Amino acid sequence: MNSTKNSILTVGSMAFDTIETPSGRAEKVLGGSGNFFSIAASFFSPVQVIGVVGEDFPKEHLNWLSQRQIDVSGVEIVPGKTFHWVGSYNENLNEARTISTALNVFEHFNPKLSAGHKAAKYVFLANIDPVLQNQVLNQMPRPNLVACDSMNFWITSKLDALKETLKKVDILSINEGESAMLSGEKNLLKAAKIIRGMGPSVLVIKRGEYGALLFTESGIFHAPAYPLEMVVDPTGAGDTFAGAFMGYLADSGIDREVAKSDPKLWETTLRKAVLAGCVMASFTVEDFSIQRLVRLTKSELVDRQKAMTQMLTIG
Amino acid sequence: MNSTKNSILTVGSMAFDTIETPSGRAEKVLGGSGNFFSIAASFFSPVQVIGVVGEDFPKEHLNWLSQRQIDVSGVEIVPGKTFHWVGSYNENLNEARTISTALNVFEHFNPKLSAGHKAAKYVFLANIDPVLQNQVLNQMPRPNLVACDSMNFWITSKLDALKETLKKVDILSINEGESAMLSGEKNLLKAAKIIRGMGPSVLVIKRGEYGALLFTESGIFHAPAYPLEMVVDPTGAGDTFAGAFMGYLADSGIDREVAKSDPKLWETTLRKAVLAGCVMASFTVEDFSIQRLVRLTKSELVDRQKAMTQMLTIG
Repeated sequence: MNSTKNSILTVGSMAFDTIETPSGRAEKVLGGSGNFFSIAASFFSPVQVIGVVGEDFPKEHLNWLSQRQIDVSGVEIVPGKTFHWVGSYNENLNEARTISTALNVFEHFNPKLSAGHKAAKYVFLANIDPVLQNQVLNQMPRPNLVACDSMNFWITSKLDALKETLKKVDILSINEGESAMLSGEKNLLKAAKIIRGMGPSVLVIKRGEYGALLFTESGIFHAPAYPLEMVVDPTGAGDTFAGAFMGYLADSGIDREVAKSDPKLWETTLRKAVLAGCVMASFTVEDFSIQRLVRLTKSELVDRQKAMTQMLTIG
Repeated sequence: MNSTKNSILTVGSMAFDTIETPSGRAEKVLGGSGNFFSIAASFFSPVQVIGVVGEDFPKEHLNWLSQRQIDVSGVEIVPGKTFHWVGSYNENLNEARTISTALNVFEHFNPKLSAGHKAAKYVFLANIDPVLQNQVLNQMPRPNLVACDSMNFWITSKLDALKETLKKVDILSINEGESAMLSGEKNLLKAAKIIRGMGPSVLVIKRGEYGALLFTESGIFHAPAYPLEMVVDPTGAGDTFAGAFMGYLADSGIDREVAKSDPKLWETTLRKAVLAGCVMASFTVEDFSIQRLVRLTKSELVDRQKAMTQMLTIG
């Protein structure tokens, strides 16, 4: 898979997660934002992923990824251990508690882009150090569309670097708590105005079981979360939301230029992409780690997308 | 106003509220579920309200109500003081804390229905003792459509009576916490199934700033809350949601028979009614007590309804 036609470049973590939720415990399972994102996006378009793993990371997984239009040539394998996150969720399942973080080889992650990476038209900077996010963007001739994620840790510790990144991105996808922290404003309307003033013309605020809000030039779109009888593990919900969202946009061939030339098409496509993101996230949380995504079929995706659309169709 | 054509009969409280929110304090202002409900519903259809007040309740307010297609002949004025609730909201504005409740004349409330009341086709039993809710229904030849509300207090203290009521209602409108308490199930899908099994074929679960979910035979509809820059006082949001919801249904002439004969029209109308409810609630919370509703114009309502519809229109 070397096609750069509507291919998405993503830079993020490849990790082991040890997770405890009310449903049980999963020991050293596959995780990481780059990993979750790539798998979700690959349902819609080709992906190139940049990351770093230790020698303990299963080669079979990298092979499996490359069988699904994911180019893993940018995943460096270096001596040492892979990033390992240990966390737990309380009964509400809405916030992860970090028990321990062993960055391991991820501590010295230094994303290097090949010519193929640099040619990608769509870029998603997963939740990593904003200094690295900038470093990636600086290596690229301006791509057609750039989106990024971030988190409380970077908002607190590297706000200036994050603001540099935000100046260069079209789309920011964060959760409700992060939007309050980044903007200094709890009210969503005010927060969205402030954050969109920092650079991204499109803002997605993820609200877990309450869905997602899309803020654009044209207004606000409100996407529900797909209701589930059972949430097993919320890990990766945000990353796979972003993966399906960007995958949908890349597959549609929508970009910054379309935003200017056909704002209506741009808006409609963004809204459909948000729904695709919510649907993908709803599958992710049905099992630990990437397990549900591994089993997920395209027709299951389409069916749930239809059901989701029904949930917001008036008549 | 004696027309019973699509008139809604509601039974609820007429009260004084003393409220403290982060926006300020309102001393002994007009409140009560019957009051809030009637005003909201009267934007859509005629209302007859049954309640009880003390001699301290302002006659001007009753006069004002009757000027807006609200028949207040069922509001008894008895010696003593009017129901007075004192409460406060924390910064999240999502849960009221009761500081004191003086039931006063409401303690011996005994709803009596005139012939005009009994002829009402639409009934909304506001959040009162379920024993009284039953008493009202027992006085009526079966009306075309019955909805009710309830609260934690009755779910805990009068569950059997509440279950009696639920057997006779078509629509139950409660909030998320109450649905968990009533069903014994936190998961919304499971809770909805259990509650719909208790009687009401239609269930609306109100989620405050996260909107509302409608559960019916046909599926789930997800309505957003209308986003506001400022919420002043959430008191009455649920009652006015119900008022606009029922008002919309009554005005449409939709009822239990239509549910059978034209399920598609029934579903679409229910969905539009939920949106009307969310829009009305969004106005209510913009000021203390009924103040915003007093100033509210029909054209403001229509504009916000359109904006709301835009928020869930994909393209």
